[in-house]
Amino acid sequence: MFKIPKHQVAGHQAIDGNLGPLVDDSGRFYKPLQDDERGTTELAFYQSFSSKLPHHIRGLFPVFYGTQLVEASDGSGLRPHLVLQDITSNHLNPSILDVKIGSRTWYPEASEDYIQKALEGDRLTTTVTLGFRISGLQIYGSKESRYWKPARKEVKSFSADDVRLVLRKFVSSNLEPEPDCCFASTIYGGCSGILEQLLELKAWFEDQTVYHFHSCSLLLLIDKESVLNGRTVPFVEVKLIDFAHTVEAEGVIDHNFLGGLCSFIKFVSEVLTDSKVSTTEASFN
Amino acid sequence: MFKIPKHQVAGHQAIDGNLGPLVDDSGRFYKPLQDDERGTTELAFYQSFSSKLPHHIRGLFPVFYGTQLVEASDGSGLRPHLVLQDITSNHLNPSILDVKIGSRTWYPEASEDYIQKALEGDRLTTTVTLGFRISGLQIYGSKESRYWKPARKEVKSFSADDVRLVLRKFVSSNLEPEPDCCFASTIYGGCSGILEQLLELKAWFEDQTVYHFHSCSLLLLIDKESVLNGRTVPFVEVKLIDFAHTVEAEGVIDHNFLGGLCSFIKFVSEVLTDSKVSTTEASFN
Repeated sequence: MFKIPKHQVAGHQAIDGNLGPLVDDSGRFYKPLQDDERGTTELAFYQSFSSKLPHHIRGLFPVFYGTQLVEASDGSGLRPHLVLQDITSNHLNPSILDVKIGSRTWYPEASEDYIQKALEGDRLTTTVTLGFRISGLQIYGSKESRYWKPARKEVKSFSADDVRLVLRKFVSSNLEPEPDCCFASTIYGGCSGILEQLLELKAWFEDQTVYHFHSCSLLLLIDKESVLNGRTVPFVEVKLIDFAHTVEAEGVIDHNFLGGLCSFIKFVSEVLTDSKVSTTEASFN
Repeated sequence: MFKIPKHQVAGHQAIDGNLGPLVDDSGRFYKPLQDDERGTTELAFYQSFSSKLPHHIRGLFPVFYGTQLVEASDGSGLRPHLVLQDITSNHLNPSILDVKIGSRTWYPEASEDYIQKALEGDRLTTTVTLGFRISGLQIYGSKESRYWKPARKEVKSFSADDVRLVLRKFVSSNLEPEPDCCFASTIYGGCSGILEQLLELKAWFEDQTVYHFHSCSLLLLIDKESVLNGRTVPFVEVKLIDFAHTVEAEGVIDHNFLGGLCSFIKFVSEVLTDSKVSTTEASFN
């Protein structure tokens, strides 16, 4: 009944006898509850978030079905798991980006050891410079080439230009030699496109003083084949995930997340603008 | 001809034979050029900024009149100074806030020594938690009480609640026991008020990829007597100052400044909202 997720791009994975998330056939995602403070924090978040968020923002979080004792993937026996919506379940060939938002993944309440390690990671990746980093990705190319899924080490060393290229490939029908960005206006643009959803999230972050999300990711999932086939729903999913370091906001907005989100929005909107310029140029030739 | 500024609230001061800025009677402010990289960076910024900023944003920076050799305040002889607009010159009893914007005053290009010192300062103040810190202030009380100007040590140890109180006192006719916020709607609100100017700045920061401003301050200057006397211009000044650590943006927005600015905007707008609520409550009593 439980299987290893086919489309996981970041985080611990349930392979080679390790502890990691599982999925079932009914569209549910089972995330092992960490047995330290991180588990407590993430569970508390999922138990309380739906009553604390406005309706139009709630859809940007995975559905939470409670917890369940599940046979852990590392063979250690029964262990409590968070039962969440499996965002990938309706998609045959999803392209996925996991983007960790914020120019700082540490927070004052964390241990000094955690802070130093997180800070080091932030400085070695684009977190400090761009206000976000890509933590993992897979981009569907074609029936023949299947997925482009660079190794974690490669993803960690992404530069700003690598990030720009990833964001172009994500909405292109080809990955080589020069991504055509032919899905940019549908996937990034439009009233239910990614940019519009990010702007809604941004408007909420400008005001919300409920949570500070540290080391939290934006998961972007698209289905290029749905777009090609004219199937409309859902060809884009935007979800926030990973709340093991989400703390109370104490009356202050999450300026760290907001700043990084605005930076990411700028990157996405540049791909959209550039693709419009090329389309216009092409139509004149 | 040159005098020590009467209304300086932060930064090096030209007192007791130290090196610091000077002013003259014609409304100019002379800032000694630091002889290391900081001086070069700040001069380069002032020499180039006006051609790189949109017209409506330029007014949020002090006017730059060039450089001039001036007898340094520490008696070390002639030294090049930046000649800038003296923002305080038209004001008899200005209340001033110097707010260092950003949850991080260090930047990847700085020396490791600078980074460690800046990070320590950021963690000890509200910089990390609020995304900004008050670096200095003076608030005019009355002819009798004159200014409330807490010592630097006290300012450095401000909590979030201290910041909230300062922002209320800043727009009140009384400082004790409970600030009345009676100028909030005029000074923070309105179409030429502080909030409107901050929102213009924010809109620019959401898009600009010209500069990253590290350790840069928002200087807010108001003149409560002008408001009381019905004199309208200028009773509010909003200026960005201190560009010794301003670097090129390399195609990325200044998410660090933007996040901190949004946090500060939220603090200001809460004072405005609360003051409206109290006014409404008062009118019902």
